[in-house]
Amino acid sequence: MSIAEKIARLREKMAEKGMDVYVIPTADFHQSEYVGEHFKARAYMTGFTGSAGTAVITASEARLWTDGRYFIQAGKQLAGSPVELMKMGEPGVPTLNEYLQTAVPEGGVLGFDGRVIAMGSGLEYEKITAEKNAKIVYDYDLVDEVWEDRPVLSEEPVFALELKYAGETTESKLARIREYMKECGAAKHILTTLDDICWILNIRGNDVEFFPLVLSYAVITMDSMELYINEKKLSAEIKEALAKDGVVLHPYNNIYEDVKKLEDGEVILIDPGKLNYALYSNIPENVVKVEKRNPEELFKAMKNPVEIENIRKAQIKDSVAHVRFMKWLKENIGKQEITEISASEKLDEFRVEMGNFIRPSFGPISALGEHAASAHYSATPESNAVLHEGTMFLTDTGAGFYEGSTDITRTYALGEIPQYMKDDFTLVAISNLMLASAKFMYGCTGLTLDMLARKPFWDRNMNFNHGTGHGVGYLLNIHEGPSGFRWQYRAHEIQPLEEGMVITDEPGVYIEGSHGVRLENELLVCKGEKNEYGQFMYMDTITYVPMDLDAINPDMMTAEEKKLLNDYHKQVYEKVSPYLNEEEKEWLAKYTREI
Amino acid sequence: MSIAEKIARLREKMAEKGMDVYVIPTADFHQSEYVGEHFKARAYMTGFTGSAGTAVITASEARLWTDGRYFIQAGKQLAGSPVELMKMGEPGVPTLNEYLQTAVPEGGVLGFDGRVIAMGSGLEYEKITAEKNAKIVYDYDLVDEVWEDRPVLSEEPVFALELKYAGETTESKLARIREYMKECGAAKHILTTLDDICWILNIRGNDVEFFPLVLSYAVITMDSMELYINEKKLSAEIKEALAKDGVVLHPYNNIYEDVKKLEDGEVILIDPGKLNYALYSNIPENVVKVEKRNPEELFKAMKNPVEIENIRKAQIKDSVAHVRFMKWLKENIGKQEITEISASEKLDEFRVEMGNFIRPSFGPISALGEHAASAHYSATPESNAVLHEGTMFLTDTGAGFYEGSTDITRTYALGEIPQYMKDDFTLVAISNLMLASAKFMYGCTGLTLDMLARKPFWDRNMNFNHGTGHGVGYLLNIHEGPSGFRWQYRAHEIQPLEEGMVITDEPGVYIEGSHGVRLENELLVCKGEKNEYGQFMYMDTITYVPMDLDAINPDMMTAEEKKLLNDYHKQVYEKVSPYLNEEEKEWLAKYTREI
Repeated sequence: MSIAEKIARLREKMAEKGMDVYVIPTADFHQSEYVGEHFKARAYMTGFTGSAGTAVITASEARLWTDGRYFIQAGKQLAGSPVELMKMGEPGVPTLNEYLQTAVPEGGVLGFDGRVIAMGSGLEYEKITAEKNAKIVYDYDLVDEVWEDRPVLSEEPVFALELKYAGETTESKLARIREYMKECGAAKHILTTLDDICWILNIRGNDVEFFPLVLSYAVITMDSMELYINEKKLSAEIKEALAKDGVVLHPYNNIYEDVKKLEDGEVILIDPGKLNYALYSNIPENVVKVEKRNPEELFKAMKNPVEIENIRKAQIKDSVAHVRFMKWLKENIGKQEITEISASEKLDEFRVEMGNFIRPSFGPISALGEHAASAHYSATPESNAVLHEGTMFLTDTGAGFYEGSTDITRTYALGEIPQYMKDDFTLVAISNLMLASAKFMYGCTGLTLDMLARKPFWDRNMNFNHGTGHGVGYLLNIHEGPSGFRWQYRAHEIQPLEEGMVITDEPGVYIEGSHGVRLENELLVCKGEKNEYGQFMYMDTITYVPMDLDAINPDMMTAEEKKLLNDYHKQVYEKVSPYLNEEEKEWLAKYTREI
Repeated sequence: MSIAEKIARLREKMAEKGMDVYVIPTADFHQSEYVGEHFKARAYMTGFTGSAGTAVITASEARLWTDGRYFIQAGKQLAGSPVELMKMGEPGVPTLNEYLQTAVPEGGVLGFDGRVIAMGSGLEYEKITAEKNAKIVYDYDLVDEVWEDRPVLSEEPVFALELKYAGETTESKLARIREYMKECGAAKHILTTLDDICWILNIRGNDVEFFPLVLSYAVITMDSMELYINEKKLSAEIKEALAKDGVVLHPYNNIYEDVKKLEDGEVILIDPGKLNYALYSNIPENVVKVEKRNPEELFKAMKNPVEIENIRKAQIKDSVAHVRFMKWLKENIGKQEITEISASEKLDEFRVEMGNFIRPSFGPISALGEHAASAHYSATPESNAVLHEGTMFLTDTGAGFYEGSTDITRTYALGEIPQYMKDDFTLVAISNLMLASAKFMYGCTGLTLDMLARKPFWDRNMNFNHGTGHGVGYLLNIHEGPSGFRWQYRAHEIQPLEEGMVITDEPGVYIEGSHGVRLENELLVCKGEKNEYGQFMYMDTITYVPMDLDAINPDMMTAEEKKLLNDYHKQVYEKVSPYLNEEEKEWLAKYTREI
């Protein structure tokens, strides 16, 4: 079916339901970062396959909003279709909401599948329709009626994460959550975030791309956990374990009807930033909603001692793989054909060799030269560049080991590179090392600490247009709240750094049409000295991969900065060399030498 | 009348009104930082004269809550009275609200003058009484019935701040405010903050200590400004000017009845953090309240070009006075008796000599040695120490010139001082200079920038227990929102630094029983380079007083830090020396020499 035909069919369905406008976002029912094949409705309807974008269909128009990362790709993929590209943020381009204000007719109907629309967006749509005396219909998935060969919802099996990896029983986790519910005066806690549910139950699965999560919802009460899930995914053994923890199974989508049965005056704990619009709207009006961040977000971000021990192992495994990859790259560039995609595969081969590897922990960024100037470049068979000397190669990838997830970025000089590239590389290295060396008082947030990463940039009238770091989940989401490093205020991120958090440190330089540099390590938040001033904290860098000395300009560095780099490289050698053979050790010694 | 007699009389009045508990805070009707004599009700009732404290009286108990700054003073002043000191923050000491939870009897009555209680506190009291089925009576000032010789409300004359100082007409300011009201959909804007009202009307007065403010309320509409003020304060000339700007006069306290007449559905703009409980409670329930920070707060914080030019002049005037004071101090210590109070008076003499001096801009902190270990020490005739060599002297004072307000802290070595004092002084100097040298992207807040001031401390497992800087008003409040430097998150302070803001930079070290160091300059926020990354900002240090080289340990400083100090001292000499005679210049050259 052509895009035009699909849209024509959707319009028929819209007409049947009396809808004037229909919104199709890129989302599953859980606000997940990656979605399973079943949920790629917007890609199916428009042909645009990028990770971010929302389509809006009316009787006469079809438009797609996406951001700057995807202008080129979307332009190509939409060419020849009836879908018009709306470049978000470009002058003169209305926002999606502005467009809806004009597209929804007076007294008309705005439709969407309320399960794939965030509660916040849905509430904004309510305002827009209210002004037009229009109404919202959110309980039809019209794309489903058009999409004949739609992939079914994942039925991949669930596996248990053993206690030697998880470090805390479900019983203990539920006890902590119930304690928090009591503090809030809530009798029930509705949970839609896949990583929180998997964390509580010590299970993992294979329902979305990259993250080993399980499609499910949960309602936690004081003596049960009502779990909405496709039972086929659960082995007898897992079912038994769940039952012991008071988990009661329900069909996946039954939660939408069940929340309608909540009683007036019942107090429920929900996270308004995490619910979808349909679920939120189905909760009866007179249920008392305690709207707070899900307590699981902080609980799971503070890794327990078992998790920390495992994470340290995972980081060393991935560091060894990276060192081998770096050596292979340096020794083979110009001698054999290496592409962005084959380099990424090679790195994964070294990871697999380390054992206990499950799968990559997110979509790889493997970018040569100017491709790396786009912070989120994803190599496709069409774009896949052959690596060559004289420029830099950026790899931002991660592994999911049973011992935890990694997220590591390195940029390597291929042969001799121009001085301006070295200068940018050195700047990024300084920024990374300065943040990693922070000492701070307990209570400090990433909003304050980010200054250390920014100062080397800002002092030079430079900047990078993304956060410096994000929390990392343990075989869950690779971007995990609630803490991170970011100078731009976001209300929900104001969370002091707590002992046991694992946060990335990944400053970058992006020069359009030329090159990009990013260096990313994971930092583990630790308690330091406690004295008359209070509790001091520091961060332990747990990723051990050389920062390519071929790309360092020592003249740009102060004595303090050189010491930080030398100290780091000493650590790299100490942690990684025990896993290397003599030849590899010799090579690593050279790339971790003092400067 | 003894304290016991006063409390007995108050209890009689409480009994007459059927009140079980009566709360007496330290406040006027406007949440002012300093209050006029008329408002010192808590000091009158308890004998404790510190600036912060709240008394609670029941039929059988009288208690006073104050913070750590005042434990010693309050202990002495309450001795022998029936008032029990409650040391806030000490283990086992209930908070005021916790005490109210037990002190208010089931079905009882909690009383207070709602005009001197902040809206937020009043709403908390509502929760406490609701749990006890008790009620609140907020419309009696019972202290007034006990206090026979109570000072009348100030009737000091108002004066106009000429346009050459204010830089913007009332007409223009009101136009900007009304524009903002329109954006909020508000037809009326209730204003109770004295500095905002004085700023709008370009008037100043003499109704509170130190700050040249005028007791008043205002209701701004789209075509008038209803001003609640004692008319006696206004000259015919000022009345005429006010009338031209559409200002309509009303008796000061009439606002409490007038807000009761607001109509159902009327939309009003109020700042919930700034209203008192009585005024808030008098607003009819069906009036639509747009609760936002007062727009005047940001408007007046961004000084206009005329104000900036004046402020620069005021800072140079005060810098010249400081240099003369420093020279006098260094040359006379050990030769004549100098006390904390006489030193402070001497500094003000030098200020008066500079012309256009109105009055000190806040209560002086003039502290020798261990006195300076208390960040807010205030010398009294009893505590007034004689300055001597071998320690340091801290002066944190300010001037109100027509050209603006200053707030400058310096710490001086008296004779030769121990190495550990020099080390602390040097640390503070480094912290001050690092923050002052910040470059940053537009949009950055003081929460991020504060890292620069903290890093030298935190790297040494040290800290100081106060914000690093606050906005400074132009002949208004010396502590002015909405921006400042502070690493601990406060929701209402999340305001990016804007061009034209004047913010202090005042790190410190406080060693109990030994010494204290603080160095405070004012920084002016300026626009820097605009390039492909965006708008860069920087701060111009506009205070020019030497950082005492007798107290600097150059061995603690990096080359970069020394350069910052040398560059600053070069500026000090350039800006101040034109106002000095040859002998003074020679002296200043020595104290601004390169290290």
